[in-house]
Amino acid sequence: MSEAVKTLDGWWSLHLLYSVDWSALRMLTDEEQDRIVTEFEEFLSRSEAVSEKKEGDHTMYNITGQKADILLWFLRPTVEELNNLENELNKLQISDFLIPEYSYFSAIEMSSYLAKDSDEDPYENPYVRSRLYPELMDAQYCCFYPMDKKRELDDNWYMLPIERRRELMRDHGMIGRQYAGKIKQYILGSQGLDLYEWGVMLLSDDMLEFKNIIYEMRFDETSARYGVFGDFYVGVRLRKDDLKSFFRI
Amino acid sequence: MSEAVKTLDGWWSLHLLYSVDWSALRMLTDEEQDRIVTEFEEFLSRSEAVSEKKEGDHTMYNITGQKADILLWFLRPTVEELNNLENELNKLQISDFLIPEYSYFSAIEMSSYLAKDSDEDPYENPYVRSRLYPELMDAQYCCFYPMDKKRELDDNWYMLPIERRRELMRDHGMIGRQYAGKIKQYILGSQGLDLYEWGVMLLSDDMLEFKNIIYEMRFDETSARYGVFGDFYVGVRLRKDDLKSFFRI
Amino acid sequence: MSEAVKTLDGWWSLHLLYSVDWSALRMLTDEEQDRIVTEFEEFLSRSEAVSEKKEGDHTMYNITGQKADILLWFLRPTVEELNNLENELNKLQISDFLIPEYSYFSAIEMSSYLAKDSDEDPYENPYVRSRLYPELMDAQYCCFYPMDKKRELDDNWYMLPIERRRELMRDHGMIGRQYAGKIKQYILGSQGLDLYEWGVMLLSDDMLEFKNIIYEMRFDETSARYGVFGDFYVGVRLRKDDLKSFFRI
Amino acid sequence: MSEAVKTLDGWWSLHLLYSVDWSALRMLTDEEQDRIVTEFEEFLSRSEAVSEKKEGDHTMYNITGQKADILLWFLRPTVEELNNLENELNKLQISDFLIPEYSYFSAIEMSSYLAKDSDEDPYENPYVRSRLYPELMDAQYCCFYPMDKKRELDDNWYMLPIERRRELMRDHGMIGRQYAGKIKQYILGSQGLDLYEWGVMLLSDDMLEFKNIIYEMRFDETSARYGVFGDFYVGVRLRKDDLKSFFRI
Amino acid sequence: MSEAVKTLDGWWSLHLLYSVDWSALRMLTDEEQDRIVTEFEEFLSRSEAVSEKKEGDHTMYNITGQKADILLWFLRPTVEELNNLENELNKLQISDFLIPEYSYFSAIEMSSYLAKDSDEDPYENPYVRSRLYPELMDAQYCCFYPMDKKRELDDNWYMLPIERRRELMRDHGMIGRQYAGKIKQYILGSQGLDLYEWGVMLLSDDMLEFKNIIYEMRFDETSARYGVFGDFYVGVRLRKDDLKSFFRI
Repeated sequence: MSEAVKTLDGWWSLHLLYSVDWSALRMLTDEEQDRIVTEFEEFLSRSEAVSEKKEGDHTMYNITGQKADILLWFLRPTVEELNNLENELNKLQISDFLIPEYSYFSAIEMSSYLAKDSDEDPYENPYVRSRLYPELMDAQYCCFYPMDKKRELDDNWYMLPIERRRELMRDHGMIGRQYAGKIKQYILGSQGLDLYEWGVMLLSDDMLEFKNIIYEMRFDETSARYGVFGDFYVGVRLRKDDLKSFFRI
Repeated sequence: MSEAVKTLDGWWSLHLLYSVDWSALRMLTDEEQDRIVTEFEEFLSRSEAVSEKKEGDHTMYNITGQKADILLWFLRPTVEELNNLENELNKLQISDFLIPEYSYFSAIEMSSYLAKDSDEDPYENPYVRSRLYPELMDAQYCCFYPMDKKRELDDNWYMLPIERRRELMRDHGMIGRQYAGKIKQYILGSQGLDLYEWGVMLLSDDMLEFKNIIYEMRFDETSARYGVFGDFYVGVRLRKDDLKSFFRI
Repeated sequence: MSEAVKTLDGWWSLHLLYSVDWSALRMLTDEEQDRIVTEFEEFLSRSEAVSEKKEGDHTMYNITGQKADILLWFLRPTVEELNNLENELNKLQISDFLIPEYSYFSAIEMSSYLAKDSDEDPYENPYVRSRLYPELMDAQYCCFYPMDKKRELDDNWYMLPIERRRELMRDHGMIGRQYAGKIKQYILGSQGLDLYEWGVMLLSDDMLEFKNIIYEMRFDETSARYGVFGDFYVGVRLRKDDLKSFFRI
Repeated sequence: MSEAVKTLDGWWSLHLLYSVDWSALRMLTDEEQDRIVTEFEEFLSRSEAVSEKKEGDHTMYNITGQKADILLWFLRPTVEELNNLENELNKLQISDFLIPEYSYFSAIEMSSYLAKDSDEDPYENPYVRSRLYPELMDAQYCCFYPMDKKRELDDNWYMLPIERRRELMRDHGMIGRQYAGKIKQYILGSQGLDLYEWGVMLLSDDMLEFKNIIYEMRFDETSARYGVFGDFYVGVRLRKDDLKSFFRI
Repeated sequence: MSEAVKTLDGWWSLHLLYSVDWSALRMLTDEEQDRIVTEFEEFLSRSEAVSEKKEGDHTMYNITGQKADILLWFLRPTVEELNNLENELNKLQISDFLIPEYSYFSAIEMSSYLAKDSDEDPYENPYVRSRLYPELMDAQYCCFYPMDKKRELDDNWYMLPIERRRELMRDHGMIGRQYAGKIKQYILGSQGLDLYEWGVMLLSDDMLEFKNIIYEMRFDETSARYGVFGDFYVGVRLRKDDLKSFFRI
């Protein structure tokens, strides 16, 4: 009957996208702006301390275009920690100047399409652990998008035999492998958690590689026939130390 | 002609999702915040008294991500009670700080695809009664989603013979049964009542099981060919006793 | 060439759905609230006088869930009267506290799929007149939804021969007839008038019958293959005499 | 290769739909309201002077339902004039009380599906000129809708041979001809100009004829298989002389 | 496996569309308006200096209809420059009166469907360079639209063999060539960067040519079967020297 492939699941993941209400921020004095940004920096410093203890990670980008100004991405071992982070952020003074645009809740996921049979507990495998509980790449650019696998009449991923899906995923993975070293890819699973079934977070120091990989993959049958893509959010790294000048108006 | 299966219908059901207007709440003093939350707690206490008399039930979750902050789910024997609850809630002071995000109106439903023929009145059967008029599980996590059965050219659930639908539902149910003890499932019917045809409310103490069951079921033909899913709302239990700290800003 | 069936058209019809801005209403004193509601009651009394002269009718419901709080449904012999009613309502003080959510413009319609050939002028037939210029049932619950007939590749209602459509409508009508006495059904035609092609307004003293009829009909080929449904708006009767307490906050 | 039919293009066309912010308007004294409406009347008078010189035309309707309150339709020889009209309108004081709801930019268009071959310059033909540079009918009701021709698998208008399209358009036109004298039809082309490919503006002194023609045409293959319709905006004529009472609140 | 054609990528590109909040602008004195517009003019002057050094370019249009009032289009060698431009613009005082409506991020792109094999580095070819790093035409009208190639069952561009795609693109290009001298076309690639896969920016001194080319191309199989179009944004050139009068209210 059911032919679902087992997934391995790592840290819980929350993407939060906000636009800045610049007109409201302008009403504040420079001192008031700095005080509010300092409180936000302290929030991020507490999250950095968590990263240092390898109990999660986070990163932040300045999104290009009007979809959002800021993308915050948090990874944590429990959902409670993510809910607390979101509630804490909502109560920071900076939130009076942030307009929610989109969020995505998921878990870091590895599918076992390509796994070898083994008696080993995969959660003890160091490579698997580095994928499920990653230390995020310190990259200049991000590209985030949610996606589904299509279920439309003859183009129905979920009705394919597992062998065919394995074959397609192998070809798909071979394209991805050509970008190793240029792009760091994080696969997020969100079936039962959010509107889309998966999310992909790409980090790189070369924005053009995002365009190259997505363009090349779109001709691969896995994407061409079965990929359903949400919006793409790309941006430039925004570091904590640059927040004061970023928000200064 | 028509081959509809009979349904059994229990309590009426109303899901209400709200975001919190934190910026407005921040304008209040701690005392004002507490007074407003106390009034909300009293509203919930009155609803708890109804639950104790087994004349309905309710629960509350803190939704993860920007879709909403709070999910309130009410069950009652009459629609008038649900309308009154909603009107009463709208008039509480806390509502000045709650932004409606999504609501879903339905009735607890059991379909008789798997029912045995019998002379018994099903509404007198204790197992059926426990399903139609449930005492809600005291669970740490919820997962709520509305859904349709597809009607698209060759993938049309409603044009299938009843025997085929019964077969598909039996296979579908067998997956669900593997999660017994891990997930408590409440099926909600809303044909003629709301945009989607059904809603599913899952409660569990393990968030990952929501991802597992939805992922596994998506490869089952009932979901793969015939399932149309709305958005997924997941969250962490929010108890009345935690409301003061939840809202304190 | 064209095989359109003739329709009979009665009164013009306008559904208006509003949410209440409770936070703004709360700013008023009880006296101010009452004065505003009194003005609204007088508007409704003038409409009641029209109903008494059989020159139209109207009814009002408290919608369940967040889609709207109030549904107003007006029937009138001319479009000018409906436009005037809407403009008059917009200028009432209560409108400062009503947020438009959805409207639907149409005409009461009878299709002649099942009509016998006859020399009689149907507009003189008393049964036809009672359907086209109805006195609305005084019912506790309403269920309103707009709908289209599908035009998608092989599932194209408008490409079916008239004999096939007549056959399908006959079967469809036979289901409806089983609900006679339990549900009063008003068919509204809106081709060329609004986004959807038809609207259905069901009135009943048993909300569960709405769920039953829609569920049963969905397995009938007319709905299963050819029905495209908009949102469903259900609610509880809201009487003029209850408006003061309904709006009191 | 390409089998596009030549079009003849007349005046540029701009539909502007607005809702009225009645609550804001109510804050003004009667004198302030009159002053603002007078300025709007003067704007319309200047446009009437253009019509008198046959250098364009305009008309205005009070839309039924909540989609909009006012529809303004302007025709002009150049796009610059339309942009200037829109900018001028935006700067009128009345615009502080008008909420943009929908706009549609196009050109009056005649397709040559039914044209006879001829050496004549069609732009010199008086009948063609009366269609491309029309003096608008002084009608009590309007019906406006944008539309596309479908491009979906086997139902693809643009993949049909030109002979088949000509045949379909001839049948389609024959239905339209039955409404001559009852409905005045203006065809607007907007490929490359707006979201939809065409717009249709119908003017008539009998609102029911809009319903009749659209209903009858939907069974014609051109609409049934190939028509994709946007929303329908209908309303009652709003004359400049009635603006003071229309806006008085 | 993958049959993607190589693309050449030039400057990064950002379209920003805004509506003007005329009611807020009206609250200012003429002096305040002028001061704000002067600051905006200085921003544009700095961008003009970049264009003079051939390190990018920009242009500005007054969009027709309610979708937006202003379109700003910027080209730059790095994404950081575009993000900085957007952030700088957000902090200008004029931004308090600009409402974001739509943005589109991409790169100027040349596909090599029609390229001859050669050992030459295309980025050194002067013709290629003039296309990838263009000096924008000083045109009276613009037409901008985003688009996808369809992936729907049998109409799937990405499943076509490369020879078939090359053939289709050749035919498609031959239509375009007929408009050389009348329309200047800029192709923008946004796979992995934005919701749509491509954007097309047309500049011309004859608005009717936009309608002609889009209409003619829609009958070409590349568009007819495989084109999915977003909204069309057209407008009239807005020059820096006209900004004071454009914004004066």
